[in-house]
Amino acid sequence: MKVLVTGFEPFGGERVNPSIEAVKRLSDKIAGADIIKAEIPTVFNKSIRKLEKILEDEKPDITICVGQAGGRNRISVERVAINISDGRIPDNEGYQPVDEIIFEDGDTAYFARLPIKKIVKELNDRNIPAEVSNTAGTYVCNHLMYGLLYNINKKYPNMMGGFIHIPFLPEQVIDKPNMPCMSLDLIVEGLTIAIEVAVNSGQSK
Amino acid sequence: MKVLVTGFEPFGGERVNPSIEAVKRLSDKIAGADIIKAEIPTVFNKSIRKLEKILEDEKPDITICVGQAGGRNRISVERVAINISDGRIPDNEGYQPVDEIIFEDGDTAYFARLPIKKIVKELNDRNIPAEVSNTAGTYVCNHLMYGLLYNINKKYPNMMGGFIHIPFLPEQVIDKPNMPCMSLDLIVEGLTIAIEVAVNSGQSK
Amino acid sequence: MKVLVTGFEPFGGERVNPSIEAVKRLSDKIAGADIIKAEIPTVFNKSIRKLEKILEDEKPDITICVGQAGGRNRISVERVAINISDGRIPDNEGYQPVDEIIFEDGDTAYFARLPIKKIVKELNDRNIPAEVSNTAGTYVCNHLMYGLLYNINKKYPNMMGGFIHIPFLPEQVIDKPNMPCMSLDLIVEGLTIAIEVAVNSGQSK
Amino acid sequence: MKVLVTGFEPFGGERVNPSIEAVKRLSDKIAGADIIKAEIPTVFNKSIRKLEKILEDEKPDITICVGQAGGRNRISVERVAINISDGRIPDNEGYQPVDEIIFEDGDTAYFARLPIKKIVKELNDRNIPAEVSNTAGTYVCNHLMYGLLYNINKKYPNMMGGFIHIPFLPEQVIDKPNMPCMSLDLIVEGLTIAIEVAVNSGQSK
Repeated sequence: MKVLVTGFEPFGGERVNPSIEAVKRLSDKIAGADIIKAEIPTVFNKSIRKLEKILEDEKPDITICVGQAGGRNRISVERVAINISDGRIPDNEGYQPVDEIIFEDGDTAYFARLPIKKIVKELNDRNIPAEVSNTAGTYVCNHLMYGLLYNINKKYPNMMGGFIHIPFLPEQVIDKPNMPCMSLDLIVEGLTIAIEVAVNSGQSK
Repeated sequence: MKVLVTGFEPFGGERVNPSIEAVKRLSDKIAGADIIKAEIPTVFNKSIRKLEKILEDEKPDITICVGQAGGRNRISVERVAINISDGRIPDNEGYQPVDEIIFEDGDTAYFARLPIKKIVKELNDRNIPAEVSNTAGTYVCNHLMYGLLYNINKKYPNMMGGFIHIPFLPEQVIDKPNMPCMSLDLIVEGLTIAIEVAVNSGQSK
Repeated sequence: MKVLVTGFEPFGGERVNPSIEAVKRLSDKIAGADIIKAEIPTVFNKSIRKLEKILEDEKPDITICVGQAGGRNRISVERVAINISDGRIPDNEGYQPVDEIIFEDGDTAYFARLPIKKIVKELNDRNIPAEVSNTAGTYVCNHLMYGLLYNINKKYPNMMGGFIHIPFLPEQVIDKPNMPCMSLDLIVEGLTIAIEVAVNSGQSK
Repeated sequence: MKVLVTGFEPFGGERVNPSIEAVKRLSDKIAGADIIKAEIPTVFNKSIRKLEKILEDEKPDITICVGQAGGRNRISVERVAINISDGRIPDNEGYQPVDEIIFEDGDTAYFARLPIKKIVKELNDRNIPAEVSNTAGTYVCNHLMYGLLYNINKKYPNMMGGFIHIPFLPEQVIDKPNMPCMSLDLIVEGLTIAIEVAVNSGQSK
């Protein structure tokens, strides 16, 4: 079994992005599955094109995209992606869409194709604070999640896939007084558990 | 040089208290100083009496009391303790004081006898989110900090001492949706750095 | 022009629901349009059936449903409703759905049929804190919003409609230490402005 | 009976300060007492000198200073002022003290000379969210509160006095996404109630 896990490059003035830092630190083998890691640019459209290329090349059984959600204090497993891009800030190439449809022929939204409740339960059972989130926002994270699920729905009906948001790292909140964070160790442990649950769920099908 | 570090037993329905968990995990030697560890009951008056007994027996050069501050998202080095106890909840023996003076012959407040700004700067420089706090509350934490500083002012003029508040552990916030936490590793690293700064500052006097 | 505005009955142990309190206080005429007011039960399914009955009887040009979003600190104009019900607590008749589809033949989500950005801009320009929200949750509020938009899409293609979330009232947060609130006067003023913007936008079509 | 109530001029880049806006709107007579209103500069030292001049000229029976506490979501009646000034930002004349003693011959702290618990209870009973606060910070608010209580302790033993912090106004948080606010009407009502309680308490002595 093959699992693709992606992280983003830093954006919004941050020097690091916890998502790619955590993804880099994952084992190459989790629950018996091969882990393929990729960095995705924090750029509208280009992010989806890069993901599509990897999906085509690698044909993973499961794809989990990971992104930073500054301000959240726990691991958030996303339930749904919506067909709109609306940037509060420009992306890493200076583009800032306002209420733009992502795929003209896509549904208004797609639900994650992951056992999100099982993942959250397992994380909490193992003392890693986690929750189901009902919005991935309208920036590049939702954009990529939507792009992934659009591709799964149109081209890869047997692929599992979804999106996990993670908090800032401690080093990112030093100058942000009221901002929560999570240590990289805990995030890596959390993502590993999420992948395990997805792999086991995929194998039981 | 001898450093006394204290943590509290769990209170308020929690099964653990991060302060005593972190204190237990500290090295026995930090920056060349001997670390003495003690658990303090989360009980008004008895907490101070236990601390006084240890101060008398051990005559530490530096005393740092550590306590849990549920709801805070970073390490808080306390600036001041006030001469009042006012419990939002009863202590571990069921006693809940309302606006009670702690020591009749004590000052209204005492400032910490620690290099609080240096500690916070060093923590932040080393990527552990920290801040100076201007209130230790009015529960057993402030009570013990006041008791320590009262004793320092009355009996041990050369002792350094103060109080550090730490966030909940991840395992404590699983069922508390909007509550921040900090991993035990990070807390232990933070306390170690705080002790190092205090010891170095004590030696340079 | 006819505008239907609905509020909910209290739920979750609260004695009041700011949504119905605010709706009751709206003028009967806003921006020249007739305002019809209705209270909706905080009950899955029954809430949608009651709304459908009113839509059929009244055939409003615009329908705005209003609900309480405890924990938010400003008026939230919802962007999207999703086809799922997942209750953290039971509804007012004791029913607590888990990941239930609302309408089998409905889309995964529907976007609001209101000028949500214009409403938010006008509110903020007039000093009433407001924001676009990308999730109405998965409780009865999202349920009703989804039901409204499903009906608009299936039966009333010319009707405008959407959902506005409002904070707790001051009286509701007295015993909730970290909970923000908004005064009823400000909420009523905010809803009035939102209706004005919707009516003006409806007339310009 | 004479009650002096002070508010501050705007600071920190804000165009208004809710404290002086609210103070200006107070009745000239509350609970039978004459209300004297004064604006205080948001400047270290000068603020205290201006207050001292008014105390000398007016000899009020009760003095309540009011200040803005951005980020708080309810009316905070302060319990204690500490003998230190430590500015996170410069004051309105560009001065930014670091850990400066306010009065060399003052106590480390002074407790408010107001029935703070009674005020908070009455506010909450009348549906205005309020709390006792254990820190007025270390900026000009604490500075002025300390200056008031120093003067009361040294020169005006029969004067009652203290400090009340109030949230941002709605208009101040439009561009501050996670910031709570309170409407001016509610703040004015809250301060009026606080003054009533203080006057009644002063008369019963």
